[in-house]
Amino acid sequence: MNIIDIIAKKRDKKILDQEEIEYFVNEYTKGNITDYQASALIMAIYINGMDYEETKNLTIAMAHSGEILDLSDISDVIIDKHSTGGVGDKITLIVMPIIATFGIPVAKMSGRGLGITGGTVDKLESIPGYKTDISIEEFKNNIKKIGISLIGQTKELAPADKKLYALRDVIACVDNIPLIASSIMSKKIAAGANKLVLEVTCGSGAFMKTQEEAEKLSYVMTKIGELAGIEIVCVITNMDEPIGRNVGNSLEIEEAVKALKGNMEEDVQEIVLTISAYILKLAGISNDIEENKKKVLENIKSGRAYEKFKELVATQYGDISYLENIKKARYVNPVKADKKGYVKKLNAEVIGQVSVALGAGRLKKEDSIDYTAGIVLEKKIGDKVDIGDILAYIHYNKDIESNKAIENVIRAYEIAEEEPEKYRHILKIM
Amino acid sequence: MNIIDIIAKKRDKKILDQEEIEYFVNEYTKGNITDYQASALIMAIYINGMDYEETKNLTIAMAHSGEILDLSDISDVIIDKHSTGGVGDKITLIVMPIIATFGIPVAKMSGRGLGITGGTVDKLESIPGYKTDISIEEFKNNIKKIGISLIGQTKELAPADKKLYALRDVIACVDNIPLIASSIMSKKIAAGANKLVLEVTCGSGAFMKTQEEAEKLSYVMTKIGELAGIEIVCVITNMDEPIGRNVGNSLEIEEAVKALKGNMEEDVQEIVLTISAYILKLAGISNDIEENKKKVLENIKSGRAYEKFKELVATQYGDISYLENIKKARYVNPVKADKKGYVKKLNAEVIGQVSVALGAGRLKKEDSIDYTAGIVLEKKIGDKVDIGDILAYIHYNKDIESNKAIENVIRAYEIAEEEPEKYRHILKIM
Repeated sequence: MNIIDIIAKKRDKKILDQEEIEYFVNEYTKGNITDYQASALIMAIYINGMDYEETKNLTIAMAHSGEILDLSDISDVIIDKHSTGGVGDKITLIVMPIIATFGIPVAKMSGRGLGITGGTVDKLESIPGYKTDISIEEFKNNIKKIGISLIGQTKELAPADKKLYALRDVIACVDNIPLIASSIMSKKIAAGANKLVLEVTCGSGAFMKTQEEAEKLSYVMTKIGELAGIEIVCVITNMDEPIGRNVGNSLEIEEAVKALKGNMEEDVQEIVLTISAYILKLAGISNDIEENKKKVLENIKSGRAYEKFKELVATQYGDISYLENIKKARYVNPVKADKKGYVKKLNAEVIGQVSVALGAGRLKKEDSIDYTAGIVLEKKIGDKVDIGDILAYIHYNKDIESNKAIENVIRAYEIAEEEPEKYRHILKIM
Repeated sequence: MNIIDIIAKKRDKKILDQEEIEYFVNEYTKGNITDYQASALIMAIYINGMDYEETKNLTIAMAHSGEILDLSDISDVIIDKHSTGGVGDKITLIVMPIIATFGIPVAKMSGRGLGITGGTVDKLESIPGYKTDISIEEFKNNIKKIGISLIGQTKELAPADKKLYALRDVIACVDNIPLIASSIMSKKIAAGANKLVLEVTCGSGAFMKTQEEAEKLSYVMTKIGELAGIEIVCVITNMDEPIGRNVGNSLEIEEAVKALKGNMEEDVQEIVLTISAYILKLAGISNDIEENKKKVLENIKSGRAYEKFKELVATQYGDISYLENIKKARYVNPVKADKKGYVKKLNAEVIGQVSVALGAGRLKKEDSIDYTAGIVLEKKIGDKVDIGDILAYIHYNKDIESNKAIENVIRAYEIAEEEPEKYRHILKIM
């Protein structure tokens, strides 16, 4: 077998078999296939596509390119939750402690933010002391002891995906469904999961811009899940506007804490209850989604969910007193409406870009993050607005052109005379 | 401008403009664009194509990636001749001295052989003393002094093509018409040519396997020639069987010497006369091709062509006494027919492969060449054969499995009962 023949096969739109895909993934991981050969193959895959069987084979090969986490001593059923990323998406931070209150083990590895997409690991690290890089041993011990651990992805898991993702990023091959699906799923398999609730974000602030694309990704994920023996539920969420009110790392911790105490924005509540209810279903608690939602609400109102979150933070060396006294940025400036009417649109991508510019995100992997920077949205889609009303606050510490940030936030808001149709938070469940 | 956007554009089957192509070629040559990014773009070009304007722009950008040879002090009209490569193709060695006898300056840079394709530079270097790496200064002086010089391509010409060609070779992107056309033409432009006769080889022993492909390449070459201001005539030659009798470096010098003395095989004569006649037409000698052919024959019969060849060899430090006493390989074994009938086919690709195995060619650029190794074909398509007749001789020096080489030569011959249709040497002129 040789890589030139494999490239030629995909170049000619033929189907690669399991052996060929495994050869590519293994030899590329070992460094025996060059980046430029991988690059040619990835571009051929991007243009000519991969069928479900190929996508499944790529997924499994990437998962097995490194260690596979064995969590069988904790439970037979390992449920994971993943978001395709968005702006203001703090759902994982709220859902995971809730799930742990049901005695379902939560072994969750999360990523860092890049571009407008925030990352759970960065948000957790905004809590002083919180360690996301504990050993796998400690990770498993925490799950056994308190039923939950949230850490960063270790280097040993799916190294092929890591290498290929970095390559895709610089050769314009990121937004391709088989490549996205295999990347996500390989990490989940490597992390030991056998059931998965996937939050597929969709809209201006997400990778998938249209519902059609989001459904296509969901369909592919479900298909390759079936082939790989992983049960998947996809919840397609609307990312045309950011989720909740707060965008930025410590600002999102603040909103998550509020939510865990029972004080949730409408959209956050709908998404949290839905995703949690489907996780409970996958875990075998009950098939009745509405009943599951009620149980979730109970465990929030009783204070158990927030207690579990505090337990998690404390166990991972975080300062729980901080949760009641979250640090604010040095400058907090209001953004005022220059028009009267109703918020018709609130562009999540633009809000994400301003948030990055304020210091809350990274443009390159090496960039550092300003934890307290970000945006708090006072008005969201459907809200009535008068001239001079505060639309949002920008939070920042750096010496930046705040006027430009303010202008851009105003630009993100589209204010119309008529009240818009009701904004749907969950578009579809597949 | 950035390379990721350029890759994405071609990935999405859009047309790249001149600025984008120039940016890519210049920055890649300088090393500011990585091999893996170039690789992704080349694969996108391979799959999604390039129109004539893009191909012309790529050609010009690659030509201008290094020095452009200025031959204007020699002549306004600089005619070049190029072959897309084949087995036993010694046409350049015969045509160029002929052309010089007409007072048309011959400034010819040739390549080395790779795979089954021989190279004029290797053949010339089989003559003891012949130097193909003289300076450009000396090259030009020779042309002024004796009207002809044949050398290897200098490193300074079209470095972008050199770099891209090496990359295409290892990412399965060699056999693509816009890429082949721009590669050939960029070198010709860089070498100072403004008129070109292109020998497009077609058949089992050539890159272009079918006449359809050969015509397509010819059409693209002519089109980009028009756009780039270069007049082109394409002569599509049949490479289903090797050209002439001899395959291998010094063996081909031997056949070229014979031809220049007026003793030409039928196919060699037809191709030599046709290509020479079209070069004379491009040079403004006469538009009458048949008349040109007669003039060419005269200059061969008078001995002027061979004299010019000897002058060339002597001027470039070659031993002209060697031309009358060409060295033979240590072993010369006959290959005998095991069947009676007529030669219906004689697979040029297989003959080329055996020739490489005997030591006459290279599999990798770094391989060395055994100058006297090769094959002499005693029977060609249409010839009558009896059992035990000698089909060919294999010439070699190395300790090889000669039985295997003999078997393979027999395999290259297809012997049928009926006399085949007349084999056409020139398929089309475009």
